[in-house]
Amino acid sequence: MTPTLVVPITVNPDLQKERDGASLSTEEFAAWWAGGKEILKFNREVRSYLEKDVDLNEVMKLEAKSHEEINEFTMRAALEAAQKLRCLQQERNPGGNEYWPNLYEQPVMWCLVPGGNPFSVMYVMLVKALQAHCTPEQYEDFGKRVERFEISATYAQTELGHGTYLRGLETRADYDPKTDEFVLNTPKISSYKWWAAGLGQCCNYCLVMAQLYINGQFKGPHMFFVQVRDEETFEPLPGVHIGDIGKKMGYIGTNHGFLGLKNVRIPRTRMLMRYAKVNADGSFVSSPNSVLNYFAMVRSRCLIVRNNAAYLAAAATIATRYSAVRRQSPINPKEREPQIMDHVTQQMKLFPEIATSLAYAMSSDYLWNLYEQTIKDIENGKYERLPELHSLSCALKVTSAVDSAAGVERLRLGCGGHGYLSSSNMSNFYALATAACTYEGENTVLLLQIGRFLMKSWRSALSGAPLAPTVQYLAEVQKNPDFGTWTGSWENMVKAMKYTAANKTRLAFKSLLARLSRGETEENAANHTGIEFTQAAELHGRAFVFSSFTDEVTGPKSQTRSASLNCVLENLLELYLVKETLNQMSNLLRFIQLTDTDLRRLQDRLETVLTKLRPDAVAIVDGFDFSDLQLNSTLGSFDGNVYERMFDAALNTPMNQKSVPKSFNEMLKPFMKSNI
Amino acid sequence: MTPTLVVPITVNPDLQKERDGASLSTEEFAAWWAGGKEILKFNREVRSYLEKDVDLNEVMKLEAKSHEEINEFTMRAALEAAQKLRCLQQERNPGGNEYWPNLYEQPVMWCLVPGGNPFSVMYVMLVKALQAHCTPEQYEDFGKRVERFEISATYAQTELGHGTYLRGLETRADYDPKTDEFVLNTPKISSYKWWAAGLGQCCNYCLVMAQLYINGQFKGPHMFFVQVRDEETFEPLPGVHIGDIGKKMGYIGTNHGFLGLKNVRIPRTRMLMRYAKVNADGSFVSSPNSVLNYFAMVRSRCLIVRNNAAYLAAAATIATRYSAVRRQSPINPKEREPQIMDHVTQQMKLFPEIATSLAYAMSSDYLWNLYEQTIKDIENGKYERLPELHSLSCALKVTSAVDSAAGVERLRLGCGGHGYLSSSNMSNFYALATAACTYEGENTVLLLQIGRFLMKSWRSALSGAPLAPTVQYLAEVQKNPDFGTWTGSWENMVKAMKYTAANKTRLAFKSLLARLSRGETEENAANHTGIEFTQAAELHGRAFVFSSFTDEVTGPKSQTRSASLNCVLENLLELYLVKETLNQMSNLLRFIQLTDTDLRRLQDRLETVLTKLRPDAVAIVDGFDFSDLQLNSTLGSFDGNVYERMFDAALNTPMNQKSVPKSFNEMLKPFMKSNI
Repeated sequence: MTPTLVVPITVNPDLQKERDGASLSTEEFAAWWAGGKEILKFNREVRSYLEKDVDLNEVMKLEAKSHEEINEFTMRAALEAAQKLRCLQQERNPGGNEYWPNLYEQPVMWCLVPGGNPFSVMYVMLVKALQAHCTPEQYEDFGKRVERFEISATYAQTELGHGTYLRGLETRADYDPKTDEFVLNTPKISSYKWWAAGLGQCCNYCLVMAQLYINGQFKGPHMFFVQVRDEETFEPLPGVHIGDIGKKMGYIGTNHGFLGLKNVRIPRTRMLMRYAKVNADGSFVSSPNSVLNYFAMVRSRCLIVRNNAAYLAAAATIATRYSAVRRQSPINPKEREPQIMDHVTQQMKLFPEIATSLAYAMSSDYLWNLYEQTIKDIENGKYERLPELHSLSCALKVTSAVDSAAGVERLRLGCGGHGYLSSSNMSNFYALATAACTYEGENTVLLLQIGRFLMKSWRSALSGAPLAPTVQYLAEVQKNPDFGTWTGSWENMVKAMKYTAANKTRLAFKSLLARLSRGETEENAANHTGIEFTQAAELHGRAFVFSSFTDEVTGPKSQTRSASLNCVLENLLELYLVKETLNQMSNLLRFIQLTDTDLRRLQDRLETVLTKLRPDAVAIVDGFDFSDLQLNSTLGSFDGNVYERMFDAALNTPMNQKSVPKSFNEMLKPFMKSNI
Repeated sequence: MTPTLVVPITVNPDLQKERDGASLSTEEFAAWWAGGKEILKFNREVRSYLEKDVDLNEVMKLEAKSHEEINEFTMRAALEAAQKLRCLQQERNPGGNEYWPNLYEQPVMWCLVPGGNPFSVMYVMLVKALQAHCTPEQYEDFGKRVERFEISATYAQTELGHGTYLRGLETRADYDPKTDEFVLNTPKISSYKWWAAGLGQCCNYCLVMAQLYINGQFKGPHMFFVQVRDEETFEPLPGVHIGDIGKKMGYIGTNHGFLGLKNVRIPRTRMLMRYAKVNADGSFVSSPNSVLNYFAMVRSRCLIVRNNAAYLAAAATIATRYSAVRRQSPINPKEREPQIMDHVTQQMKLFPEIATSLAYAMSSDYLWNLYEQTIKDIENGKYERLPELHSLSCALKVTSAVDSAAGVERLRLGCGGHGYLSSSNMSNFYALATAACTYEGENTVLLLQIGRFLMKSWRSALSGAPLAPTVQYLAEVQKNPDFGTWTGSWENMVKAMKYTAANKTRLAFKSLLARLSRGETEENAANHTGIEFTQAAELHGRAFVFSSFTDEVTGPKSQTRSASLNCVLENLLELYLVKETLNQMSNLLRFIQLTDTDLRRLQDRLETVLTKLRPDAVAIVDGFDFSDLQLNSTLGSFDGNVYERMFDAALNTPMNQKSVPKSFNEMLKPFMKSNI
């Protein structure tokens, strides 16, 4: 009995009912979320072009393949997509970049490479790094070759033994004036480069971060463009030990690589020399300013915040649609089992995450604006806002990664046991989201840096020095240490979060001073106050999200939106502020007086706004506008034919292509027939 | 350049230094943790016997294989282990059960089947269910065959469309008096059995939960023993549609199966009839008591709590050893980079999880004792404590699953980026731990049940009716609603957690009454109070863990332990109580007055006890006594040769066996050579 199963072409009526009953226009929401009608149209058009020949069944089988097969599949898909995007660019706007390479690391690629794009670091980071750090001649020489994809390269900084702490890197480049070359070495196992995306199988060049030595004198870490494989044969060059670091919990198709170097010689002109320089005679010119180096990471972190919001939105789409279709456990025993979304506890799993993805999307827009302003400042030689922007981008990277990962996981659990199936794609989204907790600066290390920045700012404020705008609230709390009355208005809640962040900073500062006064060194005192540093730093980030989300929803832009959309956004803002305030209540209650009635009122508001959002939930997640291929989930498809799709996916796996597995005759039968 | 790499046979000196400097005897801790010296010795001996022929390198490659290969590998390993355990039992104590089947689902099996044991449900659950529910004749007929492993069976309850809500199951068994048979059907796609462990490839029989109908009359859910495959050929029997549900985020080797039945006939004697009965004439005798059915799940949940503690202990072992070996980011710029365990923020990631694993191990011991007492009560026809025990086992299952999963994940993140590598085995432990959040009763559904039990208990207490011992605290708080003074002693903290749980129950009860008085039905009011129900229920579980852990450490058993071990256990108790009190502070502050000094004092105690535990951390996790094979982790091996092992694991993967991947000539080269 093998029923030939066809997934219905009709939409599940429970889902259709949700769409028909919503108070908002999904199209308006989608256009707002995408950043405008034109952008939405552009995204959709490119997406259908890219998805045209893709077979969802094949993509769904990916996780069941071996590590080697997954990487092969992914490389092919990534190259085909590159080809398509380059064609589009060529056809429609030669010389532009809106298709290629801009789209190559956007969510539109998810549908093609759910296990990550092994070439994306090349365009997200490497080409930009080369543009920033090459001399014009160098860029002409090899930068353009990467840009044109004639060669393939990645960026290798992290080593087996060192990650976020740059000064600890062990790879070294010694200048040899006799031959006008650098000699690169990874002297120990712990010096091997590790985690370079795409380096396992995709690259013949690599931008290597190494400690520069001239005549045995240390000159700090610099970037060297190193050929690692032969262009024609792809064989590793002499002295180069290169390979794949193995399977990971996510990014399963990204062939992260390792790299060992033994006396590998490269011409002197392969050190990136726009700023620091080594002359042929071995004389060294140090960089006039290390700021831009630092600045590239700010840009990456803006993108990460936006990505984290997108992962959360995708997982929320899947879980919300599933919760509209799944019926379980009667509320009233005489009635039909309800859609699980009617259980208040289920609403509490779904809607806060929808709100959180909006909150981070808004804060990443704010951050991006700040970044662009700061770029202009830099062009005018003004670097004042850099430490502030650095701290803020770190804080948002940290909190968005933490909240996105935890949120995706709550949503996965909200799908019950079925969320544990790979075909739900929820564990993949989780793996992608949680990776951001450790890449581009490990979260705790960043929080400690922010903590130190806050201590410095607090000290400056005490001495009356002016503070940067996004930490201005610290000075305000110093000036006016009384919070005043809790009213529970949105404005008041934003104020409360800033007030709490400021007071956590104050307490950490007090602890630090106490340790110093007990005779601890500055460094030991900072280490011992580490837990309080990280707490203050996290709240600093959260306070910013509170204010940027509130500004977006209540600010002048609301006039460009319909009343119904504004109403939905206000509900989401209300939910976000209330649930986050409740989450942070142990901190708030320490500094702000809330009565039992105030707390009861917050719980009422939480329950009320969940009820208000209930009829619009499906329409909102539809407005995130993910395609079925992007979601790649049996539980989250637009048509809501969940059980049919789960079943179909199972039937398609190689395990189910034989009626009797060969293990039966080889192993199980002999075992069962034996007496012992 | 391909260095032949050998993992050193020496222990990393940083790790050795930790072991030499500890204040406790690891052996004493290990014996205590195992439950006694004899048990420890037994465990170790069996483990080395089982591990003798196992190649860690082969086990490590598992996750890189295809779904099909993983399942083949796992079945072979599980059957070989069964063979060995049965031999041991036969040789050393024929007729006993301490080797076989008792060890078949214990952590000693982890080393052999890191992707889960596909046959374990057969022995953890199925044989016990058959013993409990078969008539003696039935057990003789087919129960013993399962016990002897002549046939292989599993238990199928969950369906595509229904899980925790038993009454919603759709599979039906209609009695046909003409042939004296039941006719089984899964009438819709959503009725297909789904998630039955081992059913994908390992079973020829299956215990199926189905709704019984006699003459079209519904008689409730019952268990039916159904043959699904031919014993000789393993071909599915007519009307049986069976297969594997596909890859999952964890339990990757467990071949969970689906099962569709179309007019499958089984003899009447294949319904388990120890309690309920169907006679040949179609007359039905209902079960005199449904209690025992219910009771089997209590037993499973006791085991789950213990397992959750073990996963957390294993992950803590890996992360703690790694944190002793890894050196990064100087505290003092003039000194060598410290072991990362010297960073206070890192201690905060590790030590609380060690404490939590102890807390749950202790509470599962308490739960087990309570379970055994209750078994005796049942034998004497006393069922009073069952609802209490049910609630408590659910509460501990929920909180241990949540805390274990979150803890393993914090520990994984505590290993930085390297924790993302499959070879760390951290993501596998996470996947195993988090699965417990949805299996054996989805967490939220269970919390709602506990919430209803608490409401009932609160109402009983208000009316002066006696309460069961573990909810007695509700009545005490009703009688004496004043907490008194916060002193911060352990006893006071236990009292505070109970007081908070009771007050959360009180508030939820108040909300429920308010809704009822506004005219909501009992069911709607309960749904709308769901969030508060779950909060109260969770605190109920936490209060129990507080008291059982405190009792174990401070109670009479402390006299059987050395002063140094007691000192370590006291430090772990202190850490557990302080960090959990801080975690629950927003709830505590609502009901109990703590001054700013009290809060400052808690933070100080937290930091102080982290410092106290620092020198003993490695010795403690050594005392969990996991073998390298059980941990299966490049980051967590006993010798601490972390980088060498990571490197070795990478070199061993199939991806690295060729110097040039075939994808280069097939795809990458043509692409790079093309102009578009």
